[in-house]
Amino acid sequence: MKKVALIMGSDSDLPVVTPAIKQLKELGIETEVRVMSAHRTPDAAHDFAKSAKDNGFGVIIAAAGMAAHLGGVLAASTTLPVIGIPCMAKAFDGMDALLATVMMPPGIPVATVGVNAAKNAALLAAEILAVEDDALASKLSSMREDMAKQVEEKDRAMQDKIKEI
Amino acid sequence: MKKVALIMGSDSDLPVVTPAIKQLKELGIETEVRVMSAHRTPDAAHDFAKSAKDNGFGVIIAAAGMAAHLGGVLAASTTLPVIGIPCMAKAFDGMDALLATVMMPPGIPVATVGVNAAKNAALLAAEILAVEDDALASKLSSMREDMAKQVEEKDRAMQDKIKEI
Amino acid sequence: MKKVALIMGSDSDLPVVTPAIKQLKELGIETEVRVMSAHRTPDAAHDFAKSAKDNGFGVIIAAAGMAAHLGGVLAASTTLPVIGIPCMAKAFDGMDALLATVMMPPGIPVATVGVNAAKNAALLAAEILAVEDDALASKLSSMREDMAKQVEEKDRAMQDKIKEI
Amino acid sequence: MKKVALIMGSDSDLPVVTPAIKQLKELGIETEVRVMSAHRTPDAAHDFAKSAKDNGFGVIIAAAGMAAHLGGVLAASTTLPVIGIPCMAKAFDGMDALLATVMMPPGIPVATVGVNAAKNAALLAAEILAVEDDALASKLSSMREDMAKQVEEKDRAMQDKIKEI
Amino acid sequence: MKKVALIMGSDSDLPVVTPAIKQLKELGIETEVRVMSAHRTPDAAHDFAKSAKDNGFGVIIAAAGMAAHLGGVLAASTTLPVIGIPCMAKAFDGMDALLATVMMPPGIPVATVGVNAAKNAALLAAEILAVEDDALASKLSSMREDMAKQVEEKDRAMQDKIKEI
Amino acid sequence: MKKVALIMGSDSDLPVVTPAIKQLKELGIETEVRVMSAHRTPDAAHDFAKSAKDNGFGVIIAAAGMAAHLGGVLAASTTLPVIGIPCMAKAFDGMDALLATVMMPPGIPVATVGVNAAKNAALLAAEILAVEDDALASKLSSMREDMAKQVEEKDRAMQDKIKEI
Amino acid sequence: MKKVALIMGSDSDLPVVTPAIKQLKELGIETEVRVMSAHRTPDAAHDFAKSAKDNGFGVIIAAAGMAAHLGGVLAASTTLPVIGIPCMAKAFDGMDALLATVMMPPGIPVATVGVNAAKNAALLAAEILAVEDDALASKLSSMREDMAKQVEEKDRAMQDKIKEI
Amino acid sequence: MKKVALIMGSDSDLPVVTPAIKQLKELGIETEVRVMSAHRTPDAAHDFAKSAKDNGFGVIIAAAGMAAHLGGVLAASTTLPVIGIPCMAKAFDGMDALLATVMMPPGIPVATVGVNAAKNAALLAAEILAVEDDALASKLSSMREDMAKQVEEKDRAMQDKIKEI
Repeated sequence: MKKVALIMGSDSDLPVVTPAIKQLKELGIETEVRVMSAHRTPDAAHDFAKSAKDNGFGVIIAAAGMAAHLGGVLAASTTLPVIGIPCMAKAFDGMDALLATVMMPPGIPVATVGVNAAKNAALLAAEILAVEDDALASKLSSMREDMAKQVEEKDRAMQDKIKEI
Repeated sequence: MKKVALIMGSDSDLPVVTPAIKQLKELGIETEVRVMSAHRTPDAAHDFAKSAKDNGFGVIIAAAGMAAHLGGVLAASTTLPVIGIPCMAKAFDGMDALLATVMMPPGIPVATVGVNAAKNAALLAAEILAVEDDALASKLSSMREDMAKQVEEKDRAMQDKIKEI
Repeated sequence: MKKVALIMGSDSDLPVVTPAIKQLKELGIETEVRVMSAHRTPDAAHDFAKSAKDNGFGVIIAAAGMAAHLGGVLAASTTLPVIGIPCMAKAFDGMDALLATVMMPPGIPVATVGVNAAKNAALLAAEILAVEDDALASKLSSMREDMAKQVEEKDRAMQDKIKEI
Repeated sequence: MKKVALIMGSDSDLPVVTPAIKQLKELGIETEVRVMSAHRTPDAAHDFAKSAKDNGFGVIIAAAGMAAHLGGVLAASTTLPVIGIPCMAKAFDGMDALLATVMMPPGIPVATVGVNAAKNAALLAAEILAVEDDALASKLSSMREDMAKQVEEKDRAMQDKIKEI
Repeated sequence: MKKVALIMGSDSDLPVVTPAIKQLKELGIETEVRVMSAHRTPDAAHDFAKSAKDNGFGVIIAAAGMAAHLGGVLAASTTLPVIGIPCMAKAFDGMDALLATVMMPPGIPVATVGVNAAKNAALLAAEILAVEDDALASKLSSMREDMAKQVEEKDRAMQDKIKEI
Repeated sequence: MKKVALIMGSDSDLPVVTPAIKQLKELGIETEVRVMSAHRTPDAAHDFAKSAKDNGFGVIIAAAGMAAHLGGVLAASTTLPVIGIPCMAKAFDGMDALLATVMMPPGIPVATVGVNAAKNAALLAAEILAVEDDALASKLSSMREDMAKQVEEKDRAMQDKIKEI
Repeated sequence: MKKVALIMGSDSDLPVVTPAIKQLKELGIETEVRVMSAHRTPDAAHDFAKSAKDNGFGVIIAAAGMAAHLGGVLAASTTLPVIGIPCMAKAFDGMDALLATVMMPPGIPVATVGVNAAKNAALLAAEILAVEDDALASKLSSMREDMAKQVEEKDRAMQDKIKEI
Repeated sequence: MKKVALIMGSDSDLPVVTPAIKQLKELGIETEVRVMSAHRTPDAAHDFAKSAKDNGFGVIIAAAGMAAHLGGVLAASTTLPVIGIPCMAKAFDGMDALLATVMMPPGIPVATVGVNAAKNAALLAAEILAVEDDALASKLSSMREDMAKQVEEKDRAMQDKIKEI
């Protein structure tokens, strides 16, 4: 199976992306986690993206906040699917990062998930790898069934909780 | 190669999604174009998504405006990657559709592209299919080189244009 | 009297909807409280809405956050009035949920109340049931008079409070 | 059957509310259409709301733009369900009207539909009246089925249209 | 001198308006502080505004949050200048209240100050009363001079503070 | 009676402020109309504001767009009430001008009206002058009665119009 | 004198940047106008920025819309001052470009001007070059005086215009 | 070397601007830190800007929040480059200050950095002074290299951190 690269723009983003790392591990997907900055180490980001396909990666996830250029900068140097996680910073609740990630010009898409939505980025990466990997697809289907069961369980538990209101 | 499904919430979205249809055709990707509504034909949308994988689809693209639920509704019934195109409507420049598409709860991602960014949705679908398809990957790389050449050509042409300013 | 269904997208929304549960109880309106997700249990949501009228419900209240599709998904499968409560999540102060709930396409309305406005959702449900129920209408009128008296009382109490400023 | 009151804040809102008038007529619901302003004729608005229930109304629809107080002002003087249509004006795409209509304080709900969503306001009014009116409920169900058939028809027609792309 | 009425929509707004009460007292302006709600006690608000001029008021200040109709409702029933203070609530940082206060239709202005800007509302009321009251105008001029001196003093003090950086 | 100064930041704002000029003329209020810029002629703006009271002005109206500093700059140099009209420019529907006008720091209020709301600025100026001018107050009351009659007339006319729908 | 580089992300931005080209020419500042894209020709952009200082440039102006990364990408590869012009595109009035340009992470500033504010970008570039160039500084001062005179002239002309109102 | 002036609108902004003061000191740039208000001490701000060039300043940094006029007011009275830092206040996350700073009218630019981005303001000031100062330019280049090394070091450290996830 192809690997996933998870690149964060700053090591302070680790708490945000941790759910992605856990989710990918849980699904048995090999993941390389890196810190690279579109602005502070543009050459490293550029080189990583250019050689990512040859280095066995299938998907790149980029997490960045504010004027979040990381996803776009990586996408500019690879034709692998790049998933962008817009991260919340002190101002604007991540709207700046969302717009800077999603509003890409024609030709260079970034597959954007919600603000701080690291778990969904991991699942999207898995869905992409599962297009040609039936075992992984089965795992994802099982997870969906588990999610549904958890909601049903919570629905039943709710009937007790509301008696106390 | 897996097929791409391109589903629009209303046939009035056709002008918006036409660049996606053309781009997929240009890349030689078999595409099924459908009109289904999360709200007016929820059963059809639901059934389509549930059987999409078995019917040979690899990626689903959903285009919808306003409270754009189509991407999320499809994603809820499949583990195929679902790409969402938020469409501009009369109010809010597509911000309503963008937020309704991208801010999915944990567990069900929608790979969101920019407002009305149909061409990028098609390219993202192609990038996903190209993860395990080297011929398609080569086509995408060639397109990138062509894009670069076009920009370089425009850069040269600009030197003439500015003489008239 | 017809029953009210109060459906939340996640059991973590319980603190938000508790004022609605209390308000409906106070008005003597039978209420079924459920946890169902537009994305994680779409079939359950769908089935509930389809049979809600036959099961004796008069109004459905749906509380959900982020890309809040729950109200729209329920409304798509019933002609009962569906009231949507957009819930605040970590980003955007509930604006994402508000737009995803209120900006429905022509044909499928969702009666939207303010962000986290669970009490108002309950009162709106009661007003709807009271259209043909004079006893309930009288209760609502009494509540309004009580509210007015409370404001008048606070107006009088204010005259003492401001002496200390 | 109870009547519907459709009140617009200015006669210039007539083009916006016309789809509501047509929809209510099509459903056979008796409708009184009025021009009253929360700011220019507050007494008239107030008096109308106070006596609306006694005058045979079941639902009030209020359409207003900018600092759209009309829905709230009417709701303050009746316990009938009040539906608010936020209207677009020159600035802000109706966001001002949306917030001024939907963000009501606890105690006085306004059932808000989308910006300029007059047709949905009419359908919501009909859904409310249909809670205790099976004939009207049947009409609404039929409309839903017709809507679904139209989408299906458009889906079929799309297969021809895309051949020309 | 004419009196100032300071009306808040809820007694919970007292902490927000306290700086206004203090400022008006400091300027020697007689102030009546009231709790009245555009939605819960519309008659009281209406009656107060209608008779305010005859009761010796020169300016009305209205403080309200969310769909802040109080300023507009009072302005609709008087030709006295009405100053609106949009108050912050849990969502939207007061943007809902700002738009609901300032975007009044032609004919009924509300003089809006910044979000929670109670002190400025008081000063604006004083400036209005000072148009024909030279003693009050002198007080306001002195306050401005004092403000300037305080800034100059802080400028000098800053030279010491920055030595510690 | 005191005069009103109407200052626009650019002569291109004339179409926006024309309704204010007409309204003030109609009310018989002497008005001086000027073009001064907070940024291009700061000295002129400053000097005008400083001497406005001595020159017989009672109120200053400032109309400006974008980073609309004009109201604030004038208010900084006078204790006369300053009314700000935020003007729409090409971007942001006047939101930039609204925030730049209304969000003044404590100590220097600007009485802000809606975006492009020149007529309301004129009426607010008149209301301010009318605090101590009963003749002007009477004119304003008459205008309000006329407005109400016009709405009532439109309400009657509407009954004919809707027959054609 | 150092040269100015004016780089646009797409040749379709030429109408937006033309006022900058004219302004720089008028001030006698040598300007190189280029088309380079942060996403389509990242290497070219990168190389240009890296060698700009050595090639005699003193300031770089970057004009781009949507997820406007151009300014940030150039700034990442040079320590010359980079001025960003956020350009309006079809959605969001340039707010996406503004946030993507101005919200840079610590370490890599982009000197941002208003949406489409090409003339101001040119003037800012000139002000930067004028810090050590008294002749250029004099030209800028003269321009300011001319601007002031133009406003004064328009102020005088306004006195005639308003007679016709 | 020319000096930098760092002017804050209120001494409460000191924590925000402290990183700028430190950065400028670290780079050996002489800095004068002042408290001046566009609204409370307009004359002082005006006089400072007018004589700044003659007093040996090369760049002015202005930090202000809310209706942040300070940058614009200073820029109106000098042709030195003025850098604006929009500061966050209680409401709107600094969006009011950002728009009030960046959306300047043609003729008077303010070089705007991100919300609270004091360090970037200092670096931009240094970049401006470095255009004609090779020693300073070298320092800035070294800082960039150090930044890159820090990111690389964090990238290596991350490989250990993620083992614990």
